[in-house]
Amino acid sequence: MRFYLVVNLDKANAADCAAEAAAELLRCGAEVLLTPELNAVLNCSGCQVLDDREAMQSCDAAISIGGDGTMIHTALDALEFDRPVIGINSGRLGYLTQIEPPFGDSLQKLAAGQFGIQPRTVLSVTVRQPDGSTCQSYALNDVVIARQMVASMIDIEVFRGGAAFASYRADGLIFATPTGSTAYSMSAGGAIVDPGMDCLIVTPICPHSLADRSVVLGPDAPLEVRLVTRNTPPDAGVAVDGTTICPMVDGTRLEISAAARKSRFIQLSASSFYQTLGKKLTGTEPAEIERKA
Amino acid sequence: MRFYLVVNLDKANAADCAAEAAAELLRCGAEVLLTPELNAVLNCSGCQVLDDREAMQSCDAAISIGGDGTMIHTALDALEFDRPVIGINSGRLGYLTQIEPPFGDSLQKLAAGQFGIQPRTVLSVTVRQPDGSTCQSYALNDVVIARQMVASMIDIEVFRGGAAFASYRADGLIFATPTGSTAYSMSAGGAIVDPGMDCLIVTPICPHSLADRSVVLGPDAPLEVRLVTRNTPPDAGVAVDGTTICPMVDGTRLEISAAARKSRFIQLSASSFYQTLGKKLTGTEPAEIERKA
Amino acid sequence: MRFYLVVNLDKANAADCAAEAAAELLRCGAEVLLTPELNAVLNCSGCQVLDDREAMQSCDAAISIGGDGTMIHTALDALEFDRPVIGINSGRLGYLTQIEPPFGDSLQKLAAGQFGIQPRTVLSVTVRQPDGSTCQSYALNDVVIARQMVASMIDIEVFRGGAAFASYRADGLIFATPTGSTAYSMSAGGAIVDPGMDCLIVTPICPHSLADRSVVLGPDAPLEVRLVTRNTPPDAGVAVDGTTICPMVDGTRLEISAAARKSRFIQLSASSFYQTLGKKLTGTEPAEIERKA
Amino acid sequence: MRFYLVVNLDKANAADCAAEAAAELLRCGAEVLLTPELNAVLNCSGCQVLDDREAMQSCDAAISIGGDGTMIHTALDALEFDRPVIGINSGRLGYLTQIEPPFGDSLQKLAAGQFGIQPRTVLSVTVRQPDGSTCQSYALNDVVIARQMVASMIDIEVFRGGAAFASYRADGLIFATPTGSTAYSMSAGGAIVDPGMDCLIVTPICPHSLADRSVVLGPDAPLEVRLVTRNTPPDAGVAVDGTTICPMVDGTRLEISAAARKSRFIQLSASSFYQTLGKKLTGTEPAEIERKA
Repeated sequence: MRFYLVVNLDKANAADCAAEAAAELLRCGAEVLLTPELNAVLNCSGCQVLDDREAMQSCDAAISIGGDGTMIHTALDALEFDRPVIGINSGRLGYLTQIEPPFGDSLQKLAAGQFGIQPRTVLSVTVRQPDGSTCQSYALNDVVIARQMVASMIDIEVFRGGAAFASYRADGLIFATPTGSTAYSMSAGGAIVDPGMDCLIVTPICPHSLADRSVVLGPDAPLEVRLVTRNTPPDAGVAVDGTTICPMVDGTRLEISAAARKSRFIQLSASSFYQTLGKKLTGTEPAEIERKA
Repeated sequence: MRFYLVVNLDKANAADCAAEAAAELLRCGAEVLLTPELNAVLNCSGCQVLDDREAMQSCDAAISIGGDGTMIHTALDALEFDRPVIGINSGRLGYLTQIEPPFGDSLQKLAAGQFGIQPRTVLSVTVRQPDGSTCQSYALNDVVIARQMVASMIDIEVFRGGAAFASYRADGLIFATPTGSTAYSMSAGGAIVDPGMDCLIVTPICPHSLADRSVVLGPDAPLEVRLVTRNTPPDAGVAVDGTTICPMVDGTRLEISAAARKSRFIQLSASSFYQTLGKKLTGTEPAEIERKA
Repeated sequence: MRFYLVVNLDKANAADCAAEAAAELLRCGAEVLLTPELNAVLNCSGCQVLDDREAMQSCDAAISIGGDGTMIHTALDALEFDRPVIGINSGRLGYLTQIEPPFGDSLQKLAAGQFGIQPRTVLSVTVRQPDGSTCQSYALNDVVIARQMVASMIDIEVFRGGAAFASYRADGLIFATPTGSTAYSMSAGGAIVDPGMDCLIVTPICPHSLADRSVVLGPDAPLEVRLVTRNTPPDAGVAVDGTTICPMVDGTRLEISAAARKSRFIQLSASSFYQTLGKKLTGTEPAEIERKA
Repeated sequence: MRFYLVVNLDKANAADCAAEAAAELLRCGAEVLLTPELNAVLNCSGCQVLDDREAMQSCDAAISIGGDGTMIHTALDALEFDRPVIGINSGRLGYLTQIEPPFGDSLQKLAAGQFGIQPRTVLSVTVRQPDGSTCQSYALNDVVIARQMVASMIDIEVFRGGAAFASYRADGLIFATPTGSTAYSMSAGGAIVDPGMDCLIVTPICPHSLADRSVVLGPDAPLEVRLVTRNTPPDAGVAVDGTTICPMVDGTRLEISAAARKSRFIQLSASSFYQTLGKKLTGTEPAEIERKA
C-alpha cells in the first residue's frame, strides 16, 4: 500500500503526528509519499518525495493530518483521482477524522488494507452569472448562499427538478451533504444525518418565517437557486465548504446536485460516526459543532 | 383494476367523497370492493361487497378516504398483503393523501393504472417485557417512548447494532420513518425528510440536555431501547402511530428496525410531497403539523 | 441570626454537608434550628430542635441542603412565613443553589448577615373543576398542563386579562417563572430569563404548529387556561413544580398569575446566576437542564 | 394637541393614508405639522409646515405612517425630544404599528388625548475603536455584531457589569430590546418578549455550540462586547436597527446598556401587542417576522 500524507503544518502537533505516522507506516511495510514542502520539515529518510498531484495520483490512499478543515481539502483533492482518504486528528475529536494519537493498531490495519470504504455524497455546484460566465465546484460539507451586509436579509427561491419548491426570506440558505450536517447546517438548527446516507440537507439561516425546519431531500433531482430582488440590490455571496467563491447578484443561478462521483472515506470501524456522535450527544465530549473560524 | 375503498365515516364528507369516487371508478371500468358496513351507507349497486381482509387480499390497490389517520391504518392493513395504497383527503391538504375533491382526472389515471409506486420505510417494533411476553407491531409514522405522568422525565438508553449509541433524559423519544417526519417528530423539532428515503429519525422530546437535535440514521442496523431507572419507578408507555400499545417498565426492551417489507404508496405525481411541503413552508397552506388529537 | 436547616437526607453527602454547615454556623455565633428527624441523624449538641413549622416561623432564614428540588420545597415553605432562603448544593452546580462545599467564607458571611435579598416571582395557580371544587397552589418553577397518554395532543386556550390571547394544539403548555426558565421550559425550547425579573414565560411542548416560540409576558394581567375538547375526551393533568396536583378535564379552568408575595432568595454574590449560566453556556459546566427525574 | 406626521412615501398607500389622517385630525380639532417635502405631496391647506427637527420639537406627539421601519426611525427621532409616538401601518399588520386604515375612531381618540403611554426600553450602544475614535447610537430594535464574509464565524466575548459572562463562536450575536424581540432575534430563535418589559435579549446567530438559547437579561448592568481573534483577522460589522454603522475589528469594544431615557409609545388599547401576537401565533395573520429586507 502506498499512502500520501497531506499535513496542515499550521496545526499544533501536526508535524510530530506526521513524523510518527510516517515511521509507523514504513515499519509496517507501507510506502509513504510526501511533498517536497512537507519533507523539508519531516526529513523522512524512507519516504518518497513527489509533487502533490503526482503523489495523489500514484497513491493507494491519502492520509490527512490536521483538523476537519484539512480533511475537507484532502478529500476533495482525492476525489479528482478517485482515491480513498482517511483523517488523523492532531487536535480534539472530530466528525471527519477517525484516528487520533496514540495510534494503537490503527495504522497497522491501514497498512494491511484492513478497512472498509464508505462512499460520501459530494455536492456539485455550478454558478451561472448573468454575464454568461460560469464556475463549477465540489463541496464535501456545504454550499451556502448568504447575505454579506450585517443584519440584512435576502429572498431566495429554490426549484427542484425544474418545479418551484420553496422560497425563503432569510440571512441565507445552507445546502449540506450528510458529511456537512454536523458543520454549519447544525449551527443553523439542522438535523444530524448519518454520513453514509445519500441525500441533501437544506437549512435556512435565521428565516423570516417560523417555517424554519431543515429539510432532508433525496439526491435524485437537481436544485436551482435564484435570488429575488425586492427593494434594494441584494448583497450576497456563495461559499463552498466555508470559502466564498463568488458574489450572488440579480440573475445569478446556482445549480446544486449530488455529484455522480462519491468521496471514498476509509472506515476502520463500522460505527466511528455513531461513536463520535454518541460522545458529543451525551457530553463525554463537548457537543461543539465543527466549523472553521 | 380492482380497488378496495376504505372509508372513515367519522370524517365529514367522507361518505359523499366515497360515493363519488366509487361512481367515477366504475365509470372508468374499474371494479370497486366495499365492506358490508360501508355498503350499508353507500348502497352502491355496481360495487362488490366483501369482508375487509378478503377485500384487501383480492384488490389490486387500496384507496383510503378520510384523513392522514385513516391512511395510516389502511396502509398498515395493505402492508400485510403487500398491496399498494393511495389516500383521498376529505378534509384539508395532508402529507399522506394525494387526492382531494374535485378529483379531476386523478381517478381516471388510477383506474388506467397510470401511476408509479413509491416504497415507504416501515418500522418494525418488538417489545420484550421482563415477564417474557412480547408483542410485535409495524409503524408507518413513528414509535414513541414517553413519560405518562405530567412533567416527569425518563432516562432512555439507545443501542445501535449492539453498541451503545446515546442516552437521553427527556419526556420521551420518537423513532420516526421519513413518512412520519412531518408528524410528531416535527412537533418535537425534528427535520422534515423526503418520504422516499430509507432511514429512521430519532428525535428527543424536551430533552434535559441542550444536545437536542434530531438524528437521521441509516436503516441498516437495528436499534434497541431500554429505560434506565434512577430514583423512582418510571411511568412510561410505548405508542405506535399515535396509539399506546403497552407500558414501558424497568427491564422492558424495545427492538426497532426498518422492516424488510415496505409500504407501497401509489404516486400519481412524482413530486406531490414537495408540492405539499412547498405550500406549507411558504404559507400558501397553513404550516400545521399532521398529528391526530 | 437564626438559621433553620432543611436537609434532603436522600441526597448523597447531604447529612455530612449539614453537619459541617451546622458546626460552621455555630462557630460563627449563629443559632441553628433542626427538626427532630434531622437531629436524630446529625445529633448536633449546640442546635435547637423544633418541629418544621415552628422552626420556619422562628428562624431569620432557611438553609436548604440537597439539590434544586429540595430548594424548591424549602422556598415554598419559607414563602408562607415570608422568610428568606438559600440553597447549599450537596451535588453538582445548580441554578437555584449558591453554596457548594467546600464552604470557604460563605457561611461566615451568612452568619454575619452580609448578603442581599433577591425577590423571585412566584406563580399562584387556582384550579376550578367543573364540579365546583377548587384548589390553590404556589409554583416557584412552573405550572404545566399536559397530555398524559403517550403521543396524544391536547387543545389549550389561553386568555390574558380576560381577552383571548392564544390557542395551542400541543403535548402541553408550560407557565414558568424566571426561576423556572432553566428547568422544564428550557427543555421545551424556552428562553433563559434572569431570575430577578418579574415576568411569566409561556412555552408550548411539542406544538402542532410551527409557531412554537416561548413568550415572555409581563406580570400585570392574570391568565386563564381552558382545555378545548374536539373529538375525544382529553386525558390531561396539571403539575406544579413537577408534581401532578389534579386532572384537567372538560370545563376545568386554571387561573395563573404572578403571586403578590415574592420568594426571597438570599444572594451572597450579585451575579451568581450569571456565573452559573456562563459556565453552562461555555461548557465549563455541563449545559444540563435542571429537572427532577 | 399638535401632531407631527412622518410619512414614508416609498410605501404604497402611505401618501393617501397620510392625507386621510391629516384631514381626520384637523376635523377633530387637532393641529397637524408636516415637513415641506411631505406638504409638496399632500398639499394640505390646514396643516402647518415646519422643518423636521422643529416639527418634532413643537409637537405633542409624532405619528409615523409607513411600516415598522418607518416607525423605528420616527421613534428614535422622537426620543431626542422625549415626544410620544404612534404608528399607522399603510401595509399589513405590524408589531410596532397599532392603527391601520380604516381608522374607525382611533384618530378621534388620539386627537382627544384619550390614550396611555407605554415606555419602551431603548439600547444605548457606544463603539470604541482601537484608534481611539468612538461613536454612540440608540437602538429601538437591536444591536447586531456579525460576520460579513459568507459562512465564516467570529468569536465574541460578553462581559456583564465588568465580569466575564459568556463567550460565543457564531455567525454573530444579537442584543435586542423587547420591542426588537419579534424582529431579527426571533429569526435567530429568540423568545418573544412583552414590549412593556424592561430588559435585554441576547440571542446568538448560528452558534458553534449547542448551548444556543437566547437569554433575557435584566437592564441593570451594562454589557461589554469584544471580538476574540484566533486564526484569521475577523471580518465583522456592527449594525444598529438593521443598518451597519461600523466595522468590528480586533480591539473594538462595544458598550451596550439600557438607555436612561425610554421611547414613549402611545397606546390606544392596553393589549394591542397581545392581539397582534395572538393573531400571528394562531395563524389568523401570517406568523412572519418583521425585519427589513
